[in-house]
Amino acid sequence: MNSSTHHFKQSQFVVSDPFWGRYMELVRTKVIPYQWEALNDRIPGAEPSYAMYNFRAAAGLEKGPHKGPVFQDSDWGKWIEAVGYVLAWQADPELEKIADEAIDIVCASQQPDGYLNTYYILTGLDKRWTNLMDHHELYCLGHILEGAIAYYEATGKDKLLKAMIRYVDLVDKNFGPDPDKRHGYPGHEVIEMALVRLHDITRDERHLSLAKYFIEERGKQPLYFKEECEKYGNKFYWADDPNGFHYYQAALPVREQRDARGHAVRAVYLYAGMADVARKTQDPTLLAACKELWQSVTERQMYITGSIGASPHGEAFSFDYDLPNDTIYGETCAAIGLVFFARRMLENVIDSQYADVMERALYNGVISGMSLDGQSFFYVNPLEVLPEASRKDTSKFHVKTERQKWFGCACCPPNLARLLASLGSYAYTTGDDGALFMHIYLGGRFTHSVNNRTINIKVDTRYPWDGEVTITLSPESPVAFVYALRIPGWCASYTLTVNNKVVSEKPDRGYIKLSREWKAGDTISVNFDMPVRVNMANPKVREDLGKVALSRGPVVYCMEEADNGPNLHLVSLGENRDFQIEYKPDVLNGVAVITGEGQALNDEWPEHTLYQEASPMIYASRRITWVPYYAWANRGPGEMLVWIRR
Amino acid sequence: MNSSTHHFKQSQFVVSDPFWGRYMELVRTKVIPYQWEALNDRIPGAEPSYAMYNFRAAAGLEKGPHKGPVFQDSDWGKWIEAVGYVLAWQADPELEKIADEAIDIVCASQQPDGYLNTYYILTGLDKRWTNLMDHHELYCLGHILEGAIAYYEATGKDKLLKAMIRYVDLVDKNFGPDPDKRHGYPGHEVIEMALVRLHDITRDERHLSLAKYFIEERGKQPLYFKEECEKYGNKFYWADDPNGFHYYQAALPVREQRDARGHAVRAVYLYAGMADVARKTQDPTLLAACKELWQSVTERQMYITGSIGASPHGEAFSFDYDLPNDTIYGETCAAIGLVFFARRMLENVIDSQYADVMERALYNGVISGMSLDGQSFFYVNPLEVLPEASRKDTSKFHVKTERQKWFGCACCPPNLARLLASLGSYAYTTGDDGALFMHIYLGGRFTHSVNNRTINIKVDTRYPWDGEVTITLSPESPVAFVYALRIPGWCASYTLTVNNKVVSEKPDRGYIKLSREWKAGDTISVNFDMPVRVNMANPKVREDLGKVALSRGPVVYCMEEADNGPNLHLVSLGENRDFQIEYKPDVLNGVAVITGEGQALNDEWPEHTLYQEASPMIYASRRITWVPYYAWANRGPGEMLVWIRR
Repeated sequence: MNSSTHHFKQSQFVVSDPFWGRYMELVRTKVIPYQWEALNDRIPGAEPSYAMYNFRAAAGLEKGPHKGPVFQDSDWGKWIEAVGYVLAWQADPELEKIADEAIDIVCASQQPDGYLNTYYILTGLDKRWTNLMDHHELYCLGHILEGAIAYYEATGKDKLLKAMIRYVDLVDKNFGPDPDKRHGYPGHEVIEMALVRLHDITRDERHLSLAKYFIEERGKQPLYFKEECEKYGNKFYWADDPNGFHYYQAALPVREQRDARGHAVRAVYLYAGMADVARKTQDPTLLAACKELWQSVTERQMYITGSIGASPHGEAFSFDYDLPNDTIYGETCAAIGLVFFARRMLENVIDSQYADVMERALYNGVISGMSLDGQSFFYVNPLEVLPEASRKDTSKFHVKTERQKWFGCACCPPNLARLLASLGSYAYTTGDDGALFMHIYLGGRFTHSVNNRTINIKVDTRYPWDGEVTITLSPESPVAFVYALRIPGWCASYTLTVNNKVVSEKPDRGYIKLSREWKAGDTISVNFDMPVRVNMANPKVREDLGKVALSRGPVVYCMEEADNGPNLHLVSLGENRDFQIEYKPDVLNGVAVITGEGQALNDEWPEHTLYQEASPMIYASRRITWVPYYAWANRGPGEMLVWIRR
Repeated sequence: MNSSTHHFKQSQFVVSDPFWGRYMELVRTKVIPYQWEALNDRIPGAEPSYAMYNFRAAAGLEKGPHKGPVFQDSDWGKWIEAVGYVLAWQADPELEKIADEAIDIVCASQQPDGYLNTYYILTGLDKRWTNLMDHHELYCLGHILEGAIAYYEATGKDKLLKAMIRYVDLVDKNFGPDPDKRHGYPGHEVIEMALVRLHDITRDERHLSLAKYFIEERGKQPLYFKEECEKYGNKFYWADDPNGFHYYQAALPVREQRDARGHAVRAVYLYAGMADVARKTQDPTLLAACKELWQSVTERQMYITGSIGASPHGEAFSFDYDLPNDTIYGETCAAIGLVFFARRMLENVIDSQYADVMERALYNGVISGMSLDGQSFFYVNPLEVLPEASRKDTSKFHVKTERQKWFGCACCPPNLARLLASLGSYAYTTGDDGALFMHIYLGGRFTHSVNNRTINIKVDTRYPWDGEVTITLSPESPVAFVYALRIPGWCASYTLTVNNKVVSEKPDRGYIKLSREWKAGDTISVNFDMPVRVNMANPKVREDLGKVALSRGPVVYCMEEADNGPNLHLVSLGENRDFQIEYKPDVLNGVAVITGEGQALNDEWPEHTLYQEASPMIYASRRITWVPYYAWANRGPGEMLVWIRR
């Protein structure tokens, strides 16, 4: 464990990756402008957000009551965070002007004591902090704080940051271990991560202590949420649910939580915050709890796409190895939260298992949440879809066959925007003596510094369609440090050269550590073999037994009706393992398409018969086409299947 | 089609069947006395029924408001019906006295104009017939009417029957095509069947016309339920459901209903009533509609157990070939309703497909609803159970792993009681010239008459454990008629003799018609070969693809954890088709147990890994034990599986 490891800021990275660059440009040119319209209730036909209206009303700039859900402030927080990241790599005076004006409005709503939450400002400040469990008060603070930090880091403008620090200080005065303070914590976590990030800037120990307090207090007896319900007459909605207070990860103190339970987004946000605090405070028992929860999530409750949260009821984890493909919730935000958690584990422990999961989620269950044109979004990310079932089977109503416009409860779209806009900060973490650990093979230009010497790094790659990555180092002057490369868990063979000389170092916990005195023009070249991989799941996963899923590199593939016709359930892979891989620039914005000989069950069957004596299953050869899972449902509604019969 | 075909009354049959006799005795000695206690709120710890209380209150014999759900009167109706059937084959003066006293109370609650529904008597008669859609008013009438008829037929006592005829006549005055009458029909069907049965006794055309009216008016535009909602401010609970008014089978006129939709019990009750009216009125288009709906149910929406209603949401049909085994609703009452529908189809058309389904439901999805001791009941009849999922997965909370005591909404237990107590009436229907069609191989003594000559028939069998059935005919004097035997759909070979001479007649629509002059002592002996049958489902049934289910004779089998240990999903059948069948008198009250060599997947798997490159699936030989499906969950909770991997 090394407390000095840390990720980098988006501002240190200019992404020019053919794959991710397109997503980042989409966020900049489509998602952020669209969301600004949405936050201002200017999308025709869409349910209004009321987010900017609420701030104006709270600031006294407009008359009217609070409108919309209690958590709408957070949408603006995610928006300004994404704006900050974008401005870090692309100057945009017009966008910055809009953001500054929005910040003026938000700050104008701040109360004299620092409080800033439109719901309670507009419904009665006397009731603030009376429903931490369900009213997302500290959640909204967390998101706006993250936004304030991102905007400050990108622009140097600290108006919003200062306002939020005042708000944090007010919270700190009211929450904590002192007997006269409230012993509460948020019903929806996120503020923990935000406070740790704030501490990076302020170095004010109160900010770290507050994050630590929210984590340590959680789940302690007597239970704060229970007492809060009794004291303020709040309703506990999960009384009849087997999860109960686990819904909020609040049934037990965090170190006693062995299984990831409850609302999946909240869970991974908490775990990410725990990992942050564990690193900052060098707390081995808290880190051990993170590891155990990591295992619960990734070794027993994660889909092959990196999606998590199997149950639509409570958008929650269900139980070990329960991974239904067709009734899954698998919220986009939960996969995003898993990326947050993964990077924070890497900041504690260099071990490629964390980066493998981060990569798995990024290339699959995260970006499946957005259409290729950046205009529509999935909350739910199924691995098996039958449109008729989505229309007629109530237990699959949440499984949409087409991405939705950004309406109503809009958590996932802005969350995607802030993650994608900051993707540079997930590529590397640092270790001792300027060591650089490369986790995600993202093309672009990156600046690092060792012993006050700036090192420019250029990464060229066509990843994930091609396994070749070329890294050119340009230090001001020769400098010794370790450049470490992750060998992905999916990769069975690779070649690695430095300045065209083959390197024989073996990986340590998944990383090849190249310790050199690096000089300008040194080139690291790695080529990961990317054959099609046929995957199986642990046989405890009932839903996947006797089935396989294809992947290539980090990308999980699926069959779609658009390529393979309907009745995908009749198709099976058979014995063939000879696949053709072709990059098709015109298909789905450019993807490597996999084709191969599979088989299809002969489904001839006597009329008027539902059951009969079993006869052999007769198969005919069938050409199968697979496309990347993340790109499914971009060609109209239809069947889709990740796990196909062997 | 032959309007004279009809089933027989329970009173014509004294069942002495080793299999069904035990069930009928359970009903007589356990279920009926227990239900009487339940109807009187005397079961400690149980939610009160309030059924008898409501009648006493409505009769002015006790003070107090209506209590419990609106449909509690129907529970008493089902109870008195079961009592009637029992008294038809077993005199029981004590039970008859209880019943007479109960009838006195019920009749005392009847209003001067004939009205008899405790909910509206106690909450305001001015509101009667203002919520036919949801308030089960005509449903309660239907059930009490069926009870009145059964009690009259068994005892000759007509007090209740006369009271109910008065009530029917009041309804007839208020409902019908005349402009000044209400153009409504029941939200929950059953009265249609009851009125046809009443017409058998009264031969009063108004009774048949009223049944016909309720069927013909259903689903016509403008929609009565819609108008009723508007007129009386009733809430329509299915507005956001894709089924809408299909929930009540009321979205379309019955002849335009092509697919079985909505609440499964209501649906099959309607179809059964339609079949009754089609026969009575010789209506070919109504019969054609019945046939089409029959196909929709049994060829596309029926489980191998005869259970129907795949979706817990609305306890409803979902869509063609959607037959999930683990989230099924499959209500016991729906399988019972399918038996009602099947017999009524047989009364229209002699075709063994109807009897095959009737038998399938009876030996499987009907009696799976009751524990072997008659003390506890399933509403939901799953084909695949994982206890952990039932505890932790909200979408499977309705799937219980243990039968429940008879509490609260108690539709299934008394429905089972009335069906099992009248099982004799499902064994035969008659055709022209006294022809006798034997559908269900039920042991016992039966009386028939041809040309006013009584024929005593004795049936001896150990069915379903043994395929041998011996039928001894004893006419007063020799008489010519057709005795027809159904060759079950599951049966590939059999031997048939009359007086020990092999008979060569071939089946016609599934029946071998033995046309003889029968004389005393003539013996028909049939022996159906009953090997273990390995079944497969139509490949359109996604949930069963690549799986098989075992059956023997009419009995579907399952694997239980009690015999096979946990992780049943790892077990598959493999190539072996050599099964051992042993009747075990001490197991599950005496069942034929099937054992055979199958295989179990080697589930060795590397630690900390959820997915890996696919390796061959390694199986080890494993002895498998199957027990009859209906008897599952009689040895404590555990896993259960009907469809196992090939």
